[in-house]
Amino acid sequence: MEKFELYILGCGSALPTTRHFPTSQVVNVRDKLFMIDCGEGAQLQFRKARLKFSRLNHIFLSHLHGDHCFGLFGLISTLNLLGRTADLHIHSPRGLEDAFRSTLEFFNHQMTYKVFFHEFDTREPLLIYDDRSLTVTTIPLQHRMPCCGFMFAEKPSPNHIIRDMVDFYQVPVYELNRIKNGADFITPEGEVIPNTRLTRPADPPRRYAYCSDTIYLPELVEQLRGVDLLFHEATFTDDALSRAKETFHTTASQAATLARNADVKRLLIGHFSARYEDENVLYTEASDIFPNTVLAKEMLCLQV
Amino acid sequence: MEKFELYILGCGSALPTTRHFPTSQVVNVRDKLFMIDCGEGAQLQFRKARLKFSRLNHIFLSHLHGDHCFGLFGLISTLNLLGRTADLHIHSPRGLEDAFRSTLEFFNHQMTYKVFFHEFDTREPLLIYDDRSLTVTTIPLQHRMPCCGFMFAEKPSPNHIIRDMVDFYQVPVYELNRIKNGADFITPEGEVIPNTRLTRPADPPRRYAYCSDTIYLPELVEQLRGVDLLFHEATFTDDALSRAKETFHTTASQAATLARNADVKRLLIGHFSARYEDENVLYTEASDIFPNTVLAKEMLCLQV
Repeated sequence: MEKFELYILGCGSALPTTRHFPTSQVVNVRDKLFMIDCGEGAQLQFRKARLKFSRLNHIFLSHLHGDHCFGLFGLISTLNLLGRTADLHIHSPRGLEDAFRSTLEFFNHQMTYKVFFHEFDTREPLLIYDDRSLTVTTIPLQHRMPCCGFMFAEKPSPNHIIRDMVDFYQVPVYELNRIKNGADFITPEGEVIPNTRLTRPADPPRRYAYCSDTIYLPELVEQLRGVDLLFHEATFTDDALSRAKETFHTTASQAATLARNADVKRLLIGHFSARYEDENVLYTEASDIFPNTVLAKEMLCLQV
Repeated sequence: MEKFELYILGCGSALPTTRHFPTSQVVNVRDKLFMIDCGEGAQLQFRKARLKFSRLNHIFLSHLHGDHCFGLFGLISTLNLLGRTADLHIHSPRGLEDAFRSTLEFFNHQMTYKVFFHEFDTREPLLIYDDRSLTVTTIPLQHRMPCCGFMFAEKPSPNHIIRDMVDFYQVPVYELNRIKNGADFITPEGEVIPNTRLTRPADPPRRYAYCSDTIYLPELVEQLRGVDLLFHEATFTDDALSRAKETFHTTASQAATLARNADVKRLLIGHFSARYEDENVLYTEASDIFPNTVLAKEMLCLQV
């Protein structure tokens, strides 16, 4: 199975605690690294996770609150100190470049590489990244400012060739790509060998959905249905429901309800309010509704 | 003895490692907190050290490299989230306000408190802070941009009254302040009671000198002579002397030589290059020249 992993670099919320870093995650898809949000200290945690800066080319920001993007200053400067030459792409809601450009220029007179800002509207799902094996689509959320999540979806892989059968039917090499993609093989004698005899189906494509700061949105069920792993913020417990609504956040039981209704395979909760010294109250509340729940913590690595 | 402590929040240099945060320190003088430099993650470390944001009113920046000031964004935003009302004063070489203002405004639409930028020239020692018990004076340094250190000097305390003697001579209360400040007491009969019989001398005033990023400057001996505690950067060992010169940094043995020549009481070294997995090589090099050397590390707390 191809690599598709999630690293948690930080899962706290805006107020600093002794337990957490602010939000940042890294998705590793076949050794390409994608950063999601970049709270203060993200570069330190990135190093601690023994990840390689050279494999990081794309950063996705859910929204422009400081606890989701203040780590960019240090990260961009470090890549410059390291003499990076590859382009760096930062995908975010509108406004980031205006907010950052002058400070970045002050601290990096001579850049060894280019930073490209890609800004998008958060109101509709948009395809914002597409390569041979992966797409990233935004998930519209509702927070105190424009905000979205991200769906990381593997593309379907071609079928696996069954070597013994291909040898048996003496399939020429130039036919292999067509067969991987589902074609039958016709022998020189005109016999049709069905594709199912020549290949095993590839693993089904996997999806990771990241839902950043948002008020509870039951309608997300549609876009999240059946994902392999769902990260959803769970800032509060249900007894702070009114506080959650006021601040446009979600409770642990709401996140779990969404996971259950969307029939996701696994739920990861994070973005914990500083008020919870013991986050097991959040875990208990969520797992009562959706048993396959995991509590985020720094340096956690999950296979999607 | 009144409180005069130093907390190390970060003692790494610009490139992130798994061992250190970038530079930040806190000086606690009689429960007033003064931050020196504010590298990324300073607010997290500040909380970890169980220090109180409400006691922090002044931040001193040695120079405007990112690893000494990128923590300001998060710290200033957090104080705003906490609803701070007291003014915050940031003292730095010229340029900080221009570099930070637009980004700060973007991320903090409504500030609950005011930030005052106090910018100074780094070429001459300047008195930049003065209260009842403390002065802070800049220490001119030479780095790749304008840079200075800071001398934190206690003011002399008045003598301690010897309660038994004051009672014995029936000294009236309104005379006590004069006596604390060194005056003799004259009894109603005209007898002169010398001050030394009525008081014990206060502890001598203490000094902490912080020398941030700089090329080795032997002439600092004059300003640093006899300080109780000297922090000096020691980015490299002597075998990287040419690299130290090129990058305007100091080696461990140069820092120790300065400490010895200035006859300081204790030397604390930090700002370690990411290249040293084992920092004992820096300690050994320094302590061979100046035995009373301490290696900085995060969460270290020293009495000045």
